[in-house]
Amino acid sequence: METVANAVHLPPLDNPHEREAVGIELEVTLQELIDLSLIGKQLHWSVVGPGARSVHLFLDELVGQWRELADVVAERAVTLGFVPDGQAGAVSKGYRVEPVPVHSTADHVVLWELARRVAGVAERIRERLVPIGAADLVTQDVLVDVVRTLEKQQWLLRTQLAEKV
Amino acid sequence: METVANAVHLPPLDNPHEREAVGIELEVTLQELIDLSLIGKQLHWSVVGPGARSVHLFLDELVGQWRELADVVAERAVTLGFVPDGQAGAVSKGYRVEPVPVHSTADHVVLWELARRVAGVAERIRERLVPIGAADLVTQDVLVDVVRTLEKQQWLLRTQLAEKV
Amino acid sequence: METVANAVHLPPLDNPHEREAVGIELEVTLQELIDLSLIGKQLHWSVVGPGARSVHLFLDELVGQWRELADVVAERAVTLGFVPDGQAGAVSKGYRVEPVPVHSTADHVVLWELARRVAGVAERIRERLVPIGAADLVTQDVLVDVVRTLEKQQWLLRTQLAEKV
Amino acid sequence: METVANAVHLPPLDNPHEREAVGIELEVTLQELIDLSLIGKQLHWSVVGPGARSVHLFLDELVGQWRELADVVAERAVTLGFVPDGQAGAVSKGYRVEPVPVHSTADHVVLWELARRVAGVAERIRERLVPIGAADLVTQDVLVDVVRTLEKQQWLLRTQLAEKV
Amino acid sequence: METVANAVHLPPLDNPHEREAVGIELEVTLQELIDLSLIGKQLHWSVVGPGARSVHLFLDELVGQWRELADVVAERAVTLGFVPDGQAGAVSKGYRVEPVPVHSTADHVVLWELARRVAGVAERIRERLVPIGAADLVTQDVLVDVVRTLEKQQWLLRTQLAEKV
Amino acid sequence: METVANAVHLPPLDNPHEREAVGIELEVTLQELIDLSLIGKQLHWSVVGPGARSVHLFLDELVGQWRELADVVAERAVTLGFVPDGQAGAVSKGYRVEPVPVHSTADHVVLWELARRVAGVAERIRERLVPIGAADLVTQDVLVDVVRTLEKQQWLLRTQLAEKV
Amino acid sequence: METVANAVHLPPLDNPHEREAVGIELEVTLQELIDLSLIGKQLHWSVVGPGARSVHLFLDELVGQWRELADVVAERAVTLGFVPDGQAGAVSKGYRVEPVPVHSTADHVVLWELARRVAGVAERIRERLVPIGAADLVTQDVLVDVVRTLEKQQWLLRTQLAEKV
Amino acid sequence: METVANAVHLPPLDNPHEREAVGIELEVTLQELIDLSLIGKQLHWSVVGPGARSVHLFLDELVGQWRELADVVAERAVTLGFVPDGQAGAVSKGYRVEPVPVHSTADHVVLWELARRVAGVAERIRERLVPIGAADLVTQDVLVDVVRTLEKQQWLLRTQLAEKV
Amino acid sequence: METVANAVHLPPLDNPHEREAVGIELEVTLQELIDLSLIGKQLHWSVVGPGARSVHLFLDELVGQWRELADVVAERAVTLGFVPDGQAGAVSKGYRVEPVPVHSTADHVVLWELARRVAGVAERIRERLVPIGAADLVTQDVLVDVVRTLEKQQWLLRTQLAEKV
Amino acid sequence: METVANAVHLPPLDNPHEREAVGIELEVTLQELIDLSLIGKQLHWSVVGPGARSVHLFLDELVGQWRELADVVAERAVTLGFVPDGQAGAVSKGYRVEPVPVHSTADHVVLWELARRVAGVAERIRERLVPIGAADLVTQDVLVDVVRTLEKQQWLLRTQLAEKV
Amino acid sequence: METVANAVHLPPLDNPHEREAVGIELEVTLQELIDLSLIGKQLHWSVVGPGARSVHLFLDELVGQWRELADVVAERAVTLGFVPDGQAGAVSKGYRVEPVPVHSTADHVVLWELARRVAGVAERIRERLVPIGAADLVTQDVLVDVVRTLEKQQWLLRTQLAEKV
Amino acid sequence: METVANAVHLPPLDNPHEREAVGIELEVTLQELIDLSLIGKQLHWSVVGPGARSVHLFLDELVGQWRELADVVAERAVTLGFVPDGQAGAVSKGYRVEPVPVHSTADHVVLWELARRVAGVAERIRERLVPIGAADLVTQDVLVDVVRTLEKQQWLLRTQLAEKV
Repeated sequence: METVANAVHLPPLDNPHEREAVGIELEVTLQELIDLSLIGKQLHWSVVGPGARSVHLFLDELVGQWRELADVVAERAVTLGFVPDGQAGAVSKGYRVEPVPVHSTADHVVLWELARRVAGVAERIRERLVPIGAADLVTQDVLVDVVRTLEKQQWLLRTQLAEKV
Repeated sequence: METVANAVHLPPLDNPHEREAVGIELEVTLQELIDLSLIGKQLHWSVVGPGARSVHLFLDELVGQWRELADVVAERAVTLGFVPDGQAGAVSKGYRVEPVPVHSTADHVVLWELARRVAGVAERIRERLVPIGAADLVTQDVLVDVVRTLEKQQWLLRTQLAEKV
Repeated sequence: METVANAVHLPPLDNPHEREAVGIELEVTLQELIDLSLIGKQLHWSVVGPGARSVHLFLDELVGQWRELADVVAERAVTLGFVPDGQAGAVSKGYRVEPVPVHSTADHVVLWELARRVAGVAERIRERLVPIGAADLVTQDVLVDVVRTLEKQQWLLRTQLAEKV
Repeated sequence: METVANAVHLPPLDNPHEREAVGIELEVTLQELIDLSLIGKQLHWSVVGPGARSVHLFLDELVGQWRELADVVAERAVTLGFVPDGQAGAVSKGYRVEPVPVHSTADHVVLWELARRVAGVAERIRERLVPIGAADLVTQDVLVDVVRTLEKQQWLLRTQLAEKV
Repeated sequence: METVANAVHLPPLDNPHEREAVGIELEVTLQELIDLSLIGKQLHWSVVGPGARSVHLFLDELVGQWRELADVVAERAVTLGFVPDGQAGAVSKGYRVEPVPVHSTADHVVLWELARRVAGVAERIRERLVPIGAADLVTQDVLVDVVRTLEKQQWLLRTQLAEKV
Repeated sequence: METVANAVHLPPLDNPHEREAVGIELEVTLQELIDLSLIGKQLHWSVVGPGARSVHLFLDELVGQWRELADVVAERAVTLGFVPDGQAGAVSKGYRVEPVPVHSTADHVVLWELARRVAGVAERIRERLVPIGAADLVTQDVLVDVVRTLEKQQWLLRTQLAEKV
Repeated sequence: METVANAVHLPPLDNPHEREAVGIELEVTLQELIDLSLIGKQLHWSVVGPGARSVHLFLDELVGQWRELADVVAERAVTLGFVPDGQAGAVSKGYRVEPVPVHSTADHVVLWELARRVAGVAERIRERLVPIGAADLVTQDVLVDVVRTLEKQQWLLRTQLAEKV
Repeated sequence: METVANAVHLPPLDNPHEREAVGIELEVTLQELIDLSLIGKQLHWSVVGPGARSVHLFLDELVGQWRELADVVAERAVTLGFVPDGQAGAVSKGYRVEPVPVHSTADHVVLWELARRVAGVAERIRERLVPIGAADLVTQDVLVDVVRTLEKQQWLLRTQLAEKV
Repeated sequence: METVANAVHLPPLDNPHEREAVGIELEVTLQELIDLSLIGKQLHWSVVGPGARSVHLFLDELVGQWRELADVVAERAVTLGFVPDGQAGAVSKGYRVEPVPVHSTADHVVLWELARRVAGVAERIRERLVPIGAADLVTQDVLVDVVRTLEKQQWLLRTQLAEKV
Repeated sequence: METVANAVHLPPLDNPHEREAVGIELEVTLQELIDLSLIGKQLHWSVVGPGARSVHLFLDELVGQWRELADVVAERAVTLGFVPDGQAGAVSKGYRVEPVPVHSTADHVVLWELARRVAGVAERIRERLVPIGAADLVTQDVLVDVVRTLEKQQWLLRTQLAEKV
Repeated sequence: METVANAVHLPPLDNPHEREAVGIELEVTLQELIDLSLIGKQLHWSVVGPGARSVHLFLDELVGQWRELADVVAERAVTLGFVPDGQAGAVSKGYRVEPVPVHSTADHVVLWELARRVAGVAERIRERLVPIGAADLVTQDVLVDVVRTLEKQQWLLRTQLAEKV
Repeated sequence: METVANAVHLPPLDNPHEREAVGIELEVTLQELIDLSLIGKQLHWSVVGPGARSVHLFLDELVGQWRELADVVAERAVTLGFVPDGQAGAVSKGYRVEPVPVHSTADHVVLWELARRVAGVAERIRERLVPIGAADLVTQDVLVDVVRTLEKQQWLLRTQLAEKV
């Protein structure tokens, strides 16, 4: 079957440098999304305070969105011929998001810690949107979806911190 | 909490001029979408003629889409740190869509009046897509969705006016 | 077709004065319900504070109920042969509900502002239930549904303001 | 078991005259609703013309509503201890609604014929709402629901006949 | 449009005698199914006895099946160019099913009365399956579906009468 | 917040006597509905006899309806500024419904015991509908819904006791 | 595995001539159904006129039914050991249905063009039902389903052309 | 009640010989379908190999279809007044399908063993379709459904055995 | 039927002492779960404060779980031949949970009062798990489910009281 | 692949004697559950009497539960490395449940025959719960689920036999 | 109506050359998507081999996605005032995708043939994304969606060909 | 609020040593389940080979189950007053499951690598079931659920490796 496989069309991006660059951007994004989803679950279990139930439910929505985005991002990477590493070791070594303390955490602290981290991740990807678009419009479209979702989450988090818009 | 809040990341667009410009574009779009949704309901109640039932049902679909788009547009604005005004006074004073007469209206007139208004709104936003994209790719993505939907509605309206494509 | 149409049974209420009076009552109610739904959305976008997410979700439920009631009220009016005006201009000129400021608003202020407005609307309709019933039992039934819903909303709003029953 | 059954509380209305009067009103209403549902189906099968599909679908909605109302009305009658007759013979002999011709019928004629019949039925029940209410508020509530639905249907039919409201 | 319409293909059966014969068979079947559905509802409202609730629910299933079959049968008739009469007058004059008495009826009597009527209707159609098939295999398929359903209902009714199979 | 809360519109009924009277009527109704729901569950667990399964399922439907009505009634009371007591102690001390024996109970006895209790509750509320309506049309509407449901249940219970209507 | 496979039971029809004849009938039917589905979509995109929305929606229903029937027909063919060709080239070369012009088309013309084509396809299959049944009762059952559906569609199309039944 | 029951219409087939013959055919079919469903479950639990998961899921679909068909077949038999035996003893003694070995079985062997058995069952019933149709068209319709389903399953099984059609 | 019934297998536990002991444990548990569900509803109606809506919704989830558990517990008791008393009188006299005051109650007080009561009920059952398991493993399994649910609820309540874990 | 497979972890239970003992217990349970499901279907088809419809529906619920439990039990056995035999021959030879007569059977006899068989199966498994638990807690958990379900079914059957608890 | 129609806003793109160019690109894309959907169905019917069932199901997902994309693409074209030709003749003459042989085809060959064709189509559209974007950002957005989906399908196909990424 | 909180009942286990031991067991289990879910996703993205699609889908089911179990396990830990660490750093440092290589991986290797890891995790927890049960029966119940699910997954994985049971 090897011979047959060789004849199949290669992944979409011809230029190996572009493919590598786009692949690495997707891998970093993947690791940060996985990190957010693990941290989100951690806080889902340890939040306390008058708003604990509301935050507990809200976190499950966010985690669900991060997991879906992570899937889309990872599948875009392999579509381009780049296998990203999304395992615990790689995630904890990468561009990673700062971990949260492991004990009961007050609801407003939970929101504040998340808002900072989500903003950081969104900001980093946003800065790379234009160069990525030059290499591959489809990957740019994927990352615009990621930023659009993260920035909306950031707004929802900010509102609960009583921050004026 | 004020101190904490100050430290939270600001809304995504750094440049205050760009943020203002994008915010105003989103507010105008919001007001026009709300206006369309109120006019759509008005015609939903006053349409008469052999096609009245079909138009009555069609209008509810359109109104549903305008309401959803309005929500997306308004939430993008506040995400950028700009609170748009979507109340009756602001809507009736803004770039507003022309009101329709308040009496029973024949089905083809309803379609014609709507087609003109939807086309006008779509055209205005389309002209601003490129400059908006220069300031913020994510907001451009939101507005492309709005134009894509409005132009499709415009086609559906045109077909019912027996206009050749 | 005109001749045929003339022979069709007229709308249910024979007395033109009664029809006019009932129609105007329904139109005012419609405009207030639309106003509430626009104000509700406005606050949905601008609420901030520890309870922001809860209020954000609650407002969408209220807006959904006001939209449904507005539809029922408007359709009762046209059933009686009276086309009410539900467009932005008419809504902003009518018996209207006072607009809310356009900036981020603390959650408890949102609840308080809404509670006042909902109570005002409910009270006005309640005062007219008996005379309307004398003219048309069916319209009375429609308005009892409106008051029943608004008063329940008012209770739910009051509970969140920590007001003793 | 007879002895036991005798001891069970009698149906709600004590006064046998009132029960008879309310029962007869409900029986007539039942027969008219069944008649409407059979005529509606007849027209569902024989409508032709450019609006045939729209009318075909609309008639199924109306028939569904008439069947549900008939069930509610009949069950209220037996709740009051009065078994109404809803079989073909009784329906065709009663206060009955005029039958429609048995051949292909143009869409606007279908709408016109139905509008007349629905208006007639609604009008007759409306005239009896107040005396019924004096005897039994619950039955009045049932009949207000019937009139409310029939009058809304009448409006929807009128709009399709291009009749100005 | 008349000229255009004349050129459209005629209904499927070429032979006018066959079309008439098949049409009449379908009309009789339609009327009997409508009659069963009205009688079924009548008994649904008047059944009493220890099994009343079970029979009450069972009758609604049967009525639902008769209404669906009636629709299929009537639509097959008009497909063949024959408009059958399904209104109360025609139903009560036709090959009709014997009416049931209008008063509370014991559950086992209800089952027994229905079993007799369903068996009668099924038997009459079954006798005509072969000649109908000679004229039109598709109509035969429709009627086989009717008989298959009626005979299964008859079995379900018989089991409740404690009749040995 | 107290100051703010004081300014909020009071509950709908101005007259404190009327509010008290309506509140007490709603509290009694609430307690009886809770009592019915507990007794219904009790019988759900202890019914035996050939009709046990049918009654077992039927009771769960009734219990579901009583629970829903209880919620509506209690929420109307607090809407009017009256907190009713729906706890076991209050229920067992109030206008209460007679308890049933705690042992296996034959199906027809279950139906009979319930029919008596449901009739008693419906009758008591029905007698109060007119005075309540004079004080508050909306509460009357709530109680008409309660009576309408209870009387329909009473009919369904009576039919299973083989009682002639 | 070849040896094993040889021992597997052959497709149901023993007689190779019958299998070929039935297979060809199914292939022609398949190609005509695919052709109808492509033409249906074409008209779905190009219909204009007052009834455009109704026809637009109706065409999607028809296309859905043709796609399902095509699947059933093709799977019956391969079940009998005959692989039919359902690709664009074969469809456009076969017994094919006449293509429609590629431009905006008035709603009544759309209905008229479809009615002619559906009638033609139904007629051709109907003529072959009896000989097919002699070879294979199961394939006959499949084709009766196809004709039954096509003839019902033809009726629905005819009614919209205002053709008397 | 015996006397009453005797008077009820007998099962559909008058001729006792035909009823017996048709009943026996249905009983054999029932037993084979039950046997297939037990064997299908057995293989569902014991399949191994690279395709094990796919076959595991496929078998549950087949078992579901056999169980549904068995129900239809058994209910047709009792409808005709013939109680078939579908218990383990009768199934293992009848025309039965050969059992499969009780140990882990490779996926292609599973498919092959099933294909043989399904083909055998389908073939036997197919041979009896015409004589059954002479006695009872409705039972023939039931058995055509059984053969149609079994032959489609056989095709799906054959394709997985890499057998050319 | 008595004779027949005597021959039926007795309830699962042979030893009458064990059955009594297990039955009493289940009855107490049932009464406490019913008590919790009534108190939960009481607080659902009387909660006020910034978290009122969140607590209002949360209480409905808890009440739903208590009602389901009560059903499981009561049905296990009757399965063992012991009819527990779940009526208002028995509940208010039993091992009962302390009632809550009947007036508006601040949200954090509501959570605190419930947390105490849920913990008390869970603790009592937990202490009896081992002896119950010695008598009947199946009842132990039922009660482990009850404790598992109650302890999870207790945690969710504690988190909202801002208690560190 | 054999070499690879050898290296895979063996089934969970190390001790071959324990695995065999647990496997045999699961196989017997499987065969009895299959037997119950076949007998349940047999009675589903042959039940007659006033309660026939209720029993007919109830049996389908029971059969559904037995089929699900059989699947769980068989999959636990193969998880432990033991392939149980669930085919008709093995079922009819095993610890089997006594077959029922093949003719119409009165509803109360059906319930009685089933109650006896279900009780017998439940009792046999219950006696083995403790020794199984010593070998494998997970299998014990599976069997406790089986007993819990069977004993609840037994109670539901007993109640319909009018047996006092 | 012609005069009225002329006054309606023209389709969105002003420049007729751009409209033509964009329209042709959309038509080619449409024809290729239709071609893929017909070839996909062809292979759905003719696939054989151990992976036949998996490929059979996978193809239905792909076909569903191609049909949806074709609809979106065609509707974008008519929105721009360009009616594309999607009938069999045009599809088989256009930029067309190479047809597949009409006989049973091994599963890996099916995957390989599809992978080549999907890659070809995706590649052609990708090359045109930038020029299309210069003419119309909304159409670019539509085509980015097409490419994103096709490239993901290509990856899923490649993985099954055991090709290393 | 601190004072109030102190008075709330402590977490269920009194003995701090037992609580610590049980908490640590739950934390290790949590970390292994998270690790499995990350590895499962990694393989979901990198699997290739003829069974790639089947494994791709299967992995999503497994990942879904591991995520649900992780949630249950973590919530049991905090219920007992122990906050476990489920973040990337802790997971990659703990008792962790061995990572998989980051490149395309053949389907059977994927299954083999997973089977080994799932077996390892299940085995470790199984060994601790009895001591955990001595400390807390409810936590034992949670862990029995985990082992029951993991062992079933292990069987499903083994079957696909063609391993004899």
